[in-house]
Amino acid sequence: MMVIIKDEIYGTIEFDEIEERIIDTAAFQRLRRIAQMSVTNLVYPGANHTRFEHSLGTAYLASLIAERLGLEESEKKKIKIFGLLHDIGHVAFSHEGEDVLKRYIGDHEKLGKDIIRNGEIADIINENYSSKEIAEMYGSKRGMIVEADIGADRMDYLKRDALNTGVAYGMIDIDRIVHTLAVEENELCVTEGGLEAAEFLLIARFMMFSAVYLHKTVRIATAMLQRAILGSIEDGTIKPEEFLYMGDTVAYWRMLQSQNAKKYVDGLLRRRLYKEIVSLHEKEISMKEAKELEKKLSEQFECDIIVDYPTKFSKAVELKVKTNGGLKTLPKMSSLVNSLQKAEEERRKILVIAEEAIRRTRGEEIKKVVFRSI
Amino acid sequence: MMVIIKDEIYGTIEFDEIEERIIDTAAFQRLRRIAQMSVTNLVYPGANHTRFEHSLGTAYLASLIAERLGLEESEKKKIKIFGLLHDIGHVAFSHEGEDVLKRYIGDHEKLGKDIIRNGEIADIINENYSSKEIAEMYGSKRGMIVEADIGADRMDYLKRDALNTGVAYGMIDIDRIVHTLAVEENELCVTEGGLEAAEFLLIARFMMFSAVYLHKTVRIATAMLQRAILGSIEDGTIKPEEFLYMGDTVAYWRMLQSQNAKKYVDGLLRRRLYKEIVSLHEKEISMKEAKELEKKLSEQFECDIIVDYPTKFSKAVELKVKTNGGLKTLPKMSSLVNSLQKAEEERRKILVIAEEAIRRTRGEEIKKVVFRSI
Amino acid sequence: MMVIIKDEIYGTIEFDEIEERIIDTAAFQRLRRIAQMSVTNLVYPGANHTRFEHSLGTAYLASLIAERLGLEESEKKKIKIFGLLHDIGHVAFSHEGEDVLKRYIGDHEKLGKDIIRNGEIADIINENYSSKEIAEMYGSKRGMIVEADIGADRMDYLKRDALNTGVAYGMIDIDRIVHTLAVEENELCVTEGGLEAAEFLLIARFMMFSAVYLHKTVRIATAMLQRAILGSIEDGTIKPEEFLYMGDTVAYWRMLQSQNAKKYVDGLLRRRLYKEIVSLHEKEISMKEAKELEKKLSEQFECDIIVDYPTKFSKAVELKVKTNGGLKTLPKMSSLVNSLQKAEEERRKILVIAEEAIRRTRGEEIKKVVFRSI
Amino acid sequence: MMVIIKDEIYGTIEFDEIEERIIDTAAFQRLRRIAQMSVTNLVYPGANHTRFEHSLGTAYLASLIAERLGLEESEKKKIKIFGLLHDIGHVAFSHEGEDVLKRYIGDHEKLGKDIIRNGEIADIINENYSSKEIAEMYGSKRGMIVEADIGADRMDYLKRDALNTGVAYGMIDIDRIVHTLAVEENELCVTEGGLEAAEFLLIARFMMFSAVYLHKTVRIATAMLQRAILGSIEDGTIKPEEFLYMGDTVAYWRMLQSQNAKKYVDGLLRRRLYKEIVSLHEKEISMKEAKELEKKLSEQFECDIIVDYPTKFSKAVELKVKTNGGLKTLPKMSSLVNSLQKAEEERRKILVIAEEAIRRTRGEEIKKVVFRSI
Repeated sequence: MMVIIKDEIYGTIEFDEIEERIIDTAAFQRLRRIAQMSVTNLVYPGANHTRFEHSLGTAYLASLIAERLGLEESEKKKIKIFGLLHDIGHVAFSHEGEDVLKRYIGDHEKLGKDIIRNGEIADIINENYSSKEIAEMYGSKRGMIVEADIGADRMDYLKRDALNTGVAYGMIDIDRIVHTLAVEENELCVTEGGLEAAEFLLIARFMMFSAVYLHKTVRIATAMLQRAILGSIEDGTIKPEEFLYMGDTVAYWRMLQSQNAKKYVDGLLRRRLYKEIVSLHEKEISMKEAKELEKKLSEQFECDIIVDYPTKFSKAVELKVKTNGGLKTLPKMSSLVNSLQKAEEERRKILVIAEEAIRRTRGEEIKKVVFRSI
Repeated sequence: MMVIIKDEIYGTIEFDEIEERIIDTAAFQRLRRIAQMSVTNLVYPGANHTRFEHSLGTAYLASLIAERLGLEESEKKKIKIFGLLHDIGHVAFSHEGEDVLKRYIGDHEKLGKDIIRNGEIADIINENYSSKEIAEMYGSKRGMIVEADIGADRMDYLKRDALNTGVAYGMIDIDRIVHTLAVEENELCVTEGGLEAAEFLLIARFMMFSAVYLHKTVRIATAMLQRAILGSIEDGTIKPEEFLYMGDTVAYWRMLQSQNAKKYVDGLLRRRLYKEIVSLHEKEISMKEAKELEKKLSEQFECDIIVDYPTKFSKAVELKVKTNGGLKTLPKMSSLVNSLQKAEEERRKILVIAEEAIRRTRGEEIKKVVFRSI
Repeated sequence: MMVIIKDEIYGTIEFDEIEERIIDTAAFQRLRRIAQMSVTNLVYPGANHTRFEHSLGTAYLASLIAERLGLEESEKKKIKIFGLLHDIGHVAFSHEGEDVLKRYIGDHEKLGKDIIRNGEIADIINENYSSKEIAEMYGSKRGMIVEADIGADRMDYLKRDALNTGVAYGMIDIDRIVHTLAVEENELCVTEGGLEAAEFLLIARFMMFSAVYLHKTVRIATAMLQRAILGSIEDGTIKPEEFLYMGDTVAYWRMLQSQNAKKYVDGLLRRRLYKEIVSLHEKEISMKEAKELEKKLSEQFECDIIVDYPTKFSKAVELKVKTNGGLKTLPKMSSLVNSLQKAEEERRKILVIAEEAIRRTRGEEIKKVVFRSI
Repeated sequence: MMVIIKDEIYGTIEFDEIEERIIDTAAFQRLRRIAQMSVTNLVYPGANHTRFEHSLGTAYLASLIAERLGLEESEKKKIKIFGLLHDIGHVAFSHEGEDVLKRYIGDHEKLGKDIIRNGEIADIINENYSSKEIAEMYGSKRGMIVEADIGADRMDYLKRDALNTGVAYGMIDIDRIVHTLAVEENELCVTEGGLEAAEFLLIARFMMFSAVYLHKTVRIATAMLQRAILGSIEDGTIKPEEFLYMGDTVAYWRMLQSQNAKKYVDGLLRRRLYKEIVSLHEKEISMKEAKELEKKLSEQFECDIIVDYPTKFSKAVELKVKTNGGLKTLPKMSSLVNSLQKAEEERRKILVIAEEAIRRTRGEEIKKVVFRSI
């Protein structure tokens, strides 16, 4: 018996009985309550899609790629399950939560491995496969169909984020890329027929960084959120591991009990966001100096001033192309892709932010201190 | 200064400073945390859109219609504000919550009037307009641009629900309808040029009822939700008026503290839904008889058996068409529209549902008792 | 070596070397110059898609269905080729041309068989398969994957026409239907999981008839076109079989040389179309009576008056559904589908049309004669 | 009375009675028979849209911009008419035909002015406005709403070409750009709120050049077409000015009568295209040297060898942005836009092409001669 689900990107997608039972576990259903893009919906109101949808989509896409590459039936099934579970270890607020929490409880891969190896999901997998084998796919060559630069995970989230924000949607031709994928020298790569589609994918990725992921208001909301998470842990209101069992909204609600966090959460829930006082470029200030500047400003002006250093950035692209002369990375083949990375750097700003009232009354003074400090 | 927001249906939409300040109140931001379609996302995973988006969209569409009808500037503004606020009185889980709570605290119109008349939002409105005047638009002739069968509210939610579930999306030609609207005999109506577009709108509405609103699993989840809400009130865990200050997820979390509600909420959060044992038709059983049957079954089998009677149904269509012979309602002009209402009735079933284990072990017995009882 | 083509509905689609060589023949390339919807673009300017695109799409969809049904490799290939070639026998202006020309040279099936059996295309097919075998698929059980009510041909043209006119596009969920197709009692049918999607397909079909195929201006243009074709044959300007070697535009150009046809072609090329004087219903007048009325009116008013009887109509739907109780036709299972056929009948009008100047000066008189005659 | 037309991009668009009468002239209806992208449909089968649709869309968009800029009613009307007529002077095959024919009869602006100033269209315009005034908008400041880098013409064709080829469709946010247009220092420009949307527009333009306009097969087909046009003029089969009265298909048919052109037209109609033997870069060979090389190769190998130099290229972008420091061109503000122009140059190749049989038998020899010659 197959279950049929209607996906907003791929249309009708199917899951077999094992997969359905995994989907119906509490751990997996919890992904319905974690927004894929965290606080981004404060800027793009349509960005309400969840890790749940993304996980189904990644599983589907992984099975499509495995099919295309001609893998054998049982390997295809295992890779589909890994696609389904690759984000099972996410805490509330996904990556934005993980950035704060990983020093306490590890990152989503580590947490995901634990969930896959033990408990309800492991039991279901072990009836037919080995949960240990699935867990070991993280970071392995076998996992690349899900995890590679041109793998199921990235293509799915890029397309899904684009669709739900309304940015750059039509540019990502997943269909064409899947048709031109190959494995060469043990790497997932595109053949030359897919070169242009891969290039367009990276342009779309740049546009998403420019218009969405690095959008100033998104970054301000994220900075406030991360302060709240950290604050609620530091004053003992919430234990770090609890974030693994909450969805976003319950986490907000819990954080409201924290003296440290309350101010930020109130601001997020009412969309009273901090405002930019000044922005700097990475060339002007290092991350360490930014931390020091933040401390200095907050002390001097006796209020909460944040110097936010961009942690979210696109990794250097390793996307491989299969040519007559062997594998090459795409940036080596396309001057445009190269300039995209440079353009992205230009857009990455260090933001000095504070409450609106602070900016209004003391913004100019703060600005002066910043410029004298760098 | 205008604020620009990107909407997934209309693209770029604008709000002036007054409107922006209304949007930024706590009461309005709370609409971000109320799903437009409540538990429907358990069946259509993409249905995560919120009352927030819908309210912005309704305001935009109302202003477009007012523009089309040539209303004067100040009246246009007021109607846009009414569109923005028409759903401000919704409790958690929107209509599904309201169905249970209205006997305690009134319906969303009554609650909406209170919010518009007093407090933060009223203060903002009263700087330029009269909050009393806006509140009185509910149910009035002036409010019809928002509330009519062919008004901004219905067109927006129909289109937005269609887009996010993936059902019947392309059929709704809002653009064309807006181009053919008129006011005649003090009624909002379409001219004959819009007859076909209006007909298609009603076909789309039927398809939404058939595939989504009356979908059996959606109805089962809704029945469980409503039991949970009622239970949590009856055992004193939550006061009815509190639902007006919560979003959906916090309401779930609070209901988990209720002995009465816990079982249902657990089921919803894990997607362990009740299953259908048998379905009946309205001709076979009245709502009162259904209540009695439910009681009888639960007592006889000593477990929770629900007999769910459909409360959600499309009202008789009053959509008016302007013809040479004066205003006519669409069902009078189109045999197809008539048959849609009949077809919808056929699809409205009374569902006898219970936990999966009950169905498996005692389903046949229960079925027999049901058939003997009707 | 596979050729990849980007289709506007299905995205990336592939053809093998044999198929590519068939596509590259003169007979197949000619389909680029035959509009799928003939003169409909005079009303819907976007309706410029061709039999070429539709043939590629039908081949793709046929192979998808064959795959879904689990047919063996060689049978799948043959059915795909039949899908590719099913419209190869179309004359200029497709069905609208065929309606006039079939009494002279046979219909597009007969002509298609000839082209498939002999000549360049036959030679290519016969290298690997049998051209006779492909030709015999027309009207056979083997051909039903292409030709059935729920087959590749109809699903493709309905979706493609909808996309290019902008009507009812989103309602046709080909993906879902293909997932639920089965063969039962030697018939192509949908299983119950596809019942609603099939129903929606028929609603979409109704909407296309209502808004496009039976659109009055489309019918007027078609009536003028058919007069032109007939006229150019009757005065010997063009031999009927020549229409099989021309595309639409060259046919227009050739018809301009015909005394009989010139007036109509000029009107079509400049969009100076005949206008409706009055419309009747099938209950009021038979096809034979309509012919007589036309003759009478033209003689009495000494000018060209056309009484156009609708030849284009949807055949009674035979779409089969597989139920526990065996195969049933959909109209038997759905009162809505039944009422669609009735609603369509209501919309089928007999049109009395003439040049605009005639209508303006003598329209009322003509109307009176018509009403006295029926 | 307004006429309503359904456009595939903008939905419902309207034209007043004057505009409708212009649309219904023979000269304007002829635009239905000129493909917007000439032979591109040999590569992208969906690219069958016409100058007719584009002209309606440009008029609509021009009126939208004029509205946004707050122009007075009568000026808005005139600009809309200029948008409608801006391409009225196109010969068969649009720009691809114009490239060959302009030395004989002038370009489409010159021809357009003549058509607007005299004859049927002039008479209609002169009833209410001045046809001379409309004609003088070409190349003037008043015409910039239609003609500027960010004007109605370019936005419309870019979006329409993207939609019909399926490339880069979703990236072009016309709505947002229109919302942020302004006139400053007598130039049409975007304000800073539209900076990113303008940047995305240029990225989309690059993608269209890369994937479509400079696609090798499109260029080969275009080279063959232009040889055919030139040939049919040189042997006296067709007079240059006749191309102004034909649509594409009739032009093909007429050219088949020309000894010079027949070979090329046969190839195009059957999609038997020339093939690439080798490609060079602009740094390796000038346009003049290319002409000489072509002559030399054709003589030496005694067959038709074409050295095709790209004439179609994007002009240096002059798109203006309104900043605090006055107007700036976008390439000055965005390193990415700069690199796009460089990337485009890299993709512009000089193609040495010949019939497939020549390439197969003598390709290697020809290649050697080419490399010795540069």
